[in-house]
Amino acid sequence: MSAKLQEKLLSAKTRVETTVLHYFDNVIDTEENIKAATRYSIENGGKRLRPFLVYCTGELFGAAPEDLDKAAAAIECVHSYSLVHDDLPAMDDDELRRGRPTCHIQFDEAAAILAGDALQTLAFELLSEHQFAVSHHAQIKMISALAKASGLQGMVGGQALDIAATNRSISIDELERIHKLKTGALLSCAVELGILCGNPELVTEQACNAIRTYGRAIGLAFQVRDDILDVEGDTAVLGKPQGSDIEHNKSTYPALLGLEQAKEKAEQLIDEALDALTKIDGDTEILADLAKYIIDREY
Amino acid sequence: MSAKLQEKLLSAKTRVETTVLHYFDNVIDTEENIKAATRYSIENGGKRLRPFLVYCTGELFGAAPEDLDKAAAAIECVHSYSLVHDDLPAMDDDELRRGRPTCHIQFDEAAAILAGDALQTLAFELLSEHQFAVSHHAQIKMISALAKASGLQGMVGGQALDIAATNRSISIDELERIHKLKTGALLSCAVELGILCGNPELVTEQACNAIRTYGRAIGLAFQVRDDILDVEGDTAVLGKPQGSDIEHNKSTYPALLGLEQAKEKAEQLIDEALDALTKIDGDTEILADLAKYIIDREY
Repeated sequence: MSAKLQEKLLSAKTRVETTVLHYFDNVIDTEENIKAATRYSIENGGKRLRPFLVYCTGELFGAAPEDLDKAAAAIECVHSYSLVHDDLPAMDDDELRRGRPTCHIQFDEAAAILAGDALQTLAFELLSEHQFAVSHHAQIKMISALAKASGLQGMVGGQALDIAATNRSISIDELERIHKLKTGALLSCAVELGILCGNPELVTEQACNAIRTYGRAIGLAFQVRDDILDVEGDTAVLGKPQGSDIEHNKSTYPALLGLEQAKEKAEQLIDEALDALTKIDGDTEILADLAKYIIDREY
Repeated sequence: MSAKLQEKLLSAKTRVETTVLHYFDNVIDTEENIKAATRYSIENGGKRLRPFLVYCTGELFGAAPEDLDKAAAAIECVHSYSLVHDDLPAMDDDELRRGRPTCHIQFDEAAAILAGDALQTLAFELLSEHQFAVSHHAQIKMISALAKASGLQGMVGGQALDIAATNRSISIDELERIHKLKTGALLSCAVELGILCGNPELVTEQACNAIRTYGRAIGLAFQVRDDILDVEGDTAVLGKPQGSDIEHNKSTYPALLGLEQAKEKAEQLIDEALDALTKIDGDTEILADLAKYIIDREY
């Protein structure tokens, strides 16, 4: 990973955590255990890839930093809530995430269900409470984009398709559809939020389309790489058990395409992402670094 | 129940169901089982009290019918999602609601978790996708009001307090705090959405404050009556087992105050609600009918 990328990822991580945790630092009149479980769920040590995409896209288009903070925090709340619910015994039944006990292990199932629910709500609270520098119309479009990407026709629909595909063999098209919804919708939404936070005078149609292509391509590449790491990775580095996809009888790219072809697919997607960036008139070096990191990463 | 109230409740019910089910009638590219579970969860045969309050409040202030449809549907989605999650085995573990199997019984736990998640998202999709007759600013305030009423400092916080209060004796103040958040926040929000949908030229501060007082009072009265019905009601009429609060070791108004004093409290609250209505310059007969119905109802 380039030093510049490392620094930017850390900055996105710090800013989004500061924004969300600021909410918890205020006196909240609520039950203490659920407050702790919700906070625990957002302090999950993730890469904050979605916030990173919000920041980098927004900065390309001259967005106000405070607007990006709120948009990035909102999308991370949705992502974090989905992990908490996905880890539940009735879903993926995972006890470990990024080396830490999952929420229902650290607290209990009821707290994990409610913490997830609260985090989803918090996303929409963050987007609706902030006085954005952009128009109210753009703000409403952000809320709409996040809702669509999160719901039945986005992330939740993808998770349902994923569960329905467990223990049976599926085609590569079906696998692609799952990932397009389960992870792709929210990653694309991160790019969209960055665009919507942008100064309308600096946002061109060509640049928007190019960065959307980039977002779709790295989103899928990320998933292909995840599947590869599940085969080749190291449990200690991954922060979750290596081989858990196989154990859960989930279809993966290596299983459907073979390991070598899966690697080729990831590289093709990264090439597509890098190619899209050349169509943007602006400094996209950091986005290119991210694309390269996605297929090099070990966790 | 007066004929006029019956008709209006039915109309609110029909309109809100039409609005939400319209979403499912469109082709949704998602997993069929989760689509069915989400639809099942909204078609739950409830009284649609929150939508009713949105409609009646909005109509007092000359709101556009289409705006009220969307606001009413959104708040009902949040209420329905909370019921689905509250019924889960890790929470209240209820198998029956309004005479039908709960979502996790009819489908399974994973479907119930995801259907609840999807319904919450749908609420914000409905509020953000619609072109409201009122300003974008009012629309954002609706989204913010719904998010605040639903989250840690509202409904979810109340549910957490309710769980924490199970199996131990609590004070009447603690019980009031639980209900203020668990059910009161969303009922007050219904009134707030009605106000926000109103024509700003017709919305006066005095009328707003009066209807807010009305909303808070009937919200609490509804809960007190619920507790009384749990002691005195009939399982077949209630659609859920009579005595389930006692069985779940939940604190109730009759348990803390005694049955007679609980009944008195409900009546006092209804008097307070009726008194507030006299401060509103407009036809509030239907709202008065609702208040009276709340303490007379048998389910």
